[in-house]
Amino acid sequence: MTTPHALDGVTVEIYDTTLRDGAQQEGMNLTVADKMAIAPLLDELGVAVIEGGWPGAIPKDTEFFGRVSKELELPRAQVAAFGATRKAGARVHDDVQVRALLDSEAPIVTLVAKSDVRHVERALRTTAEENLAMITDTVRYLREAGRRVIVDAEHFFDGYRFDRDYALGAVDAAFAAGASDVVLCDTNGGMLPEWVHAIVSDVAARAGGTLGIHAHNDSGCAVANSVAAVVAGARHVQGTINGYGERTGNADLLAVVANLELKLGARCLAPGALAESTRIAHAVSEVTNIPPYGRQPYIGASAFAHKAGLHASAIKVDPDMYQHIDPTLVGNDMRMLVSDMAGRASIELKGRELGFDLAGQPELLTRVVDRVKNAEAQGYTFDAADASFALMLREEIDGARPAFFRVESWRASVNYSERVGGDGESEATVKLHAGGERVVRTGEGNGPVNALDHALREALVGVYPEIESFELVDFRVRLLDTSHGTDAVTRVLIETTNGSEVWSTVGVGANILEASYEALVDAIVYGLVAGGVEVR
Amino acid sequence: MTTPHALDGVTVEIYDTTLRDGAQQEGMNLTVADKMAIAPLLDELGVAVIEGGWPGAIPKDTEFFGRVSKELELPRAQVAAFGATRKAGARVHDDVQVRALLDSEAPIVTLVAKSDVRHVERALRTTAEENLAMITDTVRYLREAGRRVIVDAEHFFDGYRFDRDYALGAVDAAFAAGASDVVLCDTNGGMLPEWVHAIVSDVAARAGGTLGIHAHNDSGCAVANSVAAVVAGARHVQGTINGYGERTGNADLLAVVANLELKLGARCLAPGALAESTRIAHAVSEVTNIPPYGRQPYIGASAFAHKAGLHASAIKVDPDMYQHIDPTLVGNDMRMLVSDMAGRASIELKGRELGFDLAGQPELLTRVVDRVKNAEAQGYTFDAADASFALMLREEIDGARPAFFRVESWRASVNYSERVGGDGESEATVKLHAGGERVVRTGEGNGPVNALDHALREALVGVYPEIESFELVDFRVRLLDTSHGTDAVTRVLIETTNGSEVWSTVGVGANILEASYEALVDAIVYGLVAGGVEVR
Repeated sequence: MTTPHALDGVTVEIYDTTLRDGAQQEGMNLTVADKMAIAPLLDELGVAVIEGGWPGAIPKDTEFFGRVSKELELPRAQVAAFGATRKAGARVHDDVQVRALLDSEAPIVTLVAKSDVRHVERALRTTAEENLAMITDTVRYLREAGRRVIVDAEHFFDGYRFDRDYALGAVDAAFAAGASDVVLCDTNGGMLPEWVHAIVSDVAARAGGTLGIHAHNDSGCAVANSVAAVVAGARHVQGTINGYGERTGNADLLAVVANLELKLGARCLAPGALAESTRIAHAVSEVTNIPPYGRQPYIGASAFAHKAGLHASAIKVDPDMYQHIDPTLVGNDMRMLVSDMAGRASIELKGRELGFDLAGQPELLTRVVDRVKNAEAQGYTFDAADASFALMLREEIDGARPAFFRVESWRASVNYSERVGGDGESEATVKLHAGGERVVRTGEGNGPVNALDHALREALVGVYPEIESFELVDFRVRLLDTSHGTDAVTRVLIETTNGSEVWSTVGVGANILEASYEALVDAIVYGLVAGGVEVR
Repeated sequence: MTTPHALDGVTVEIYDTTLRDGAQQEGMNLTVADKMAIAPLLDELGVAVIEGGWPGAIPKDTEFFGRVSKELELPRAQVAAFGATRKAGARVHDDVQVRALLDSEAPIVTLVAKSDVRHVERALRTTAEENLAMITDTVRYLREAGRRVIVDAEHFFDGYRFDRDYALGAVDAAFAAGASDVVLCDTNGGMLPEWVHAIVSDVAARAGGTLGIHAHNDSGCAVANSVAAVVAGARHVQGTINGYGERTGNADLLAVVANLELKLGARCLAPGALAESTRIAHAVSEVTNIPPYGRQPYIGASAFAHKAGLHASAIKVDPDMYQHIDPTLVGNDMRMLVSDMAGRASIELKGRELGFDLAGQPELLTRVVDRVKNAEAQGYTFDAADASFALMLREEIDGARPAFFRVESWRASVNYSERVGGDGESEATVKLHAGGERVVRTGEGNGPVNALDHALREALVGVYPEIESFELVDFRVRLLDTSHGTDAVTRVLIETTNGSEVWSTVGVGANILEASYEALVDAIVYGLVAGGVEVR
């Protein structure tokens, strides 16, 4: 078997297709501005190639290529334009789609080509011979224009199984015409790793150039299939950040890279870049606006989060005993989760993480564990609300939370009393006591929660100017019992920042306003506590 | 290489640990009632064993075992109690934890045992020899009590690499004492498939009983590792529904099973049960209240969803050309997604899916594509809102949507004017025209959206009694630009049912109320249209 570091010294070219194949994902809709924001993040990772889209076929991709070379500094990565081989029965010089690839001025052109004869006949509706001619003509034409040409052999694995000779013939045609790489695509994502290993080994034994792998996750094996292909001889890997892509997605590029670099010793990204992968993957999801998947290997928020009491006690002895890698190698952190499964050990570790030394305070630990259990039964969750948990912990330690202010009452109202289509008016009024005075403030906003947020700040900022710097950066709403629709209990999780740190709080209530109120108050109190502000 | 159907005729025992190891997942908090609700679903799938929890260690697990045998009919599955080998230096007869396993009356006991000598010495803090004696004593004791005993060899793969002889010695001790299966656990989830294949092959060549595999997904290879182990000789697979579990989760049991049954020919579940897996996996997520992951292999909502215009045209020719399996084999469906990437082909297919024949109406198709692009630019998404898309399509076809009613104005207000802690009052007033009359109704609710929902229904039910049967079953809120916190544009997706069908609608607005209003109105209009109701 391949041993750890079996690929020491091997270099693998990383080809990112987040902006093209990744954008096929359900619910994803990348603007040109989004693509312009993501490309520098990919370059920072040190991927060798950034596939930007299909100029000519998709207008905003044409615009992207027009802007990228002028507006972006990409010191490490080259940009690739994706397109197809020439039309059947036509001359490549007359093919407008091929022309658009040249016009994009991308130094690399990646051509999708058929290698499964069934697709040639039923989707392209042309002959096996003509398809090979289309590959030869288009690759040669683009090479003569001075471009590096990569050929994506679509449906290669299915095609190889159905007609090995034809699939191999397509690979040979591409290399013969001057392609630098032929990428074997598991377009339907149905392969298993040992199949990929066997087929890539067979092709590598006779291929006239560098082979690549392009995997999809339909069998749940995209990462494993990509690694298996490299072990079998592929030296070019295509994938997407966060595994974005149509259906079940493409291979999660950063998981593939982490496996290749950390477990097999290959070189993929710029030196040190892997340690930026968690930050960059999350930055990309900020742009795509697709919530990060907590269980994502290596870079997920939960990837190194430990909950089991069983493990927690051992983790105190040695974290490496329960982690497959050191999380800092991918820029992630170990986290202890607080839940009713947590024993004292994990609460103690969580406390330490938050700066409380609870060692040797068994009664306190017991009280906190009980309180967590009760709160979770009501719908709270502290897994994703460290700040609310820290306030609870402090309350148990000090007997009370710092009394920065006391709210007497509040209300919020929304009025769409104008004709429908007109703007609604939202306002909230808060009556509270702070700095020895009674303050009444009314805030407006583009919604009741926003208005309430404004009213609270305006009522407090006079006494606590520190609040000026607090900003609400994320706001998530969850119905805890969807079987009752809008009657359900509402949980709100919010993230607040003061510019340097970010903290998360939770609120639960009969409706979004009640829950939001609680989370907003926790956010302000925690921000003041963390800032070392005294009660005034 | 293993060819498709290489495991024809091979039977693999499926061991579900959703209720035990799966419950370690971040954000998951299963009550006894939750476990009682999930167990019958697992039995319906035909898993051989349902691991219920750790009686004695976790109170609610003790309660679960007390209730399951009395209250549940499980015709297919046997229940297993999870626990640990006896304490070091103690007699097994005196071990309360082991006693609790017998008291659970579970016919199967699964013992976690150390097989990595480093964990023996540093976590258990005992000697290599004593650990083997702990395995021998505990297995023998439980066997003498008439239980089937499965041994989970924790950290087996890491242990094998560090000290092969000791790891194998632990396996031998378990079999010698009467264990029916020894499950090789990749506890830290760091293995790669070829490593698993090589190690399991080595163990299988000398083991005295059935081997199992227990994989975690930290390398993104849990599914592939599980399949590799079976190919190498394991005949027992542990995993969880939806891949729930600590950190990155356990092996996604249904993806492993689908690969084993559909791609390798093994027999795992009850005949025909695989076709229920999508429904059951989603039913389980209803209970766990963890939103389903759309990109989940085989059973995800996106698993067979096609967006690319490129593919859509070919899919019209033959769906199998772009799918690795027939989705109905796992109870899933092919879906066409509507987005600004969609060409006319996918809009046409989507229309057909919704019952509109758009073939040969190019102008209409162009209008719809343009409208979709504009709407998505404003924040709408139709991927998850078929009903709103259908209404838009109908509007383009008929020139207008059916005028069941016309809303003149509405407002909603929330009042927490009492002391904080008291209940808030939410109410909404709607003024609309329906059935030739002007109707003004005020609705109350436990929140402004709920009140608005009630006001709309109350204003319309007189003229359209069909609305009586509509119920809002899911309600999701998303901020589209989280960088501005509560200032962001809000998107609301709601699901409504009439008892038989479920439909989804979308609304976008400056705040949750404006967005909810739009989605609620769409939901009512679509329900009336789908019900064949005439404008009154």
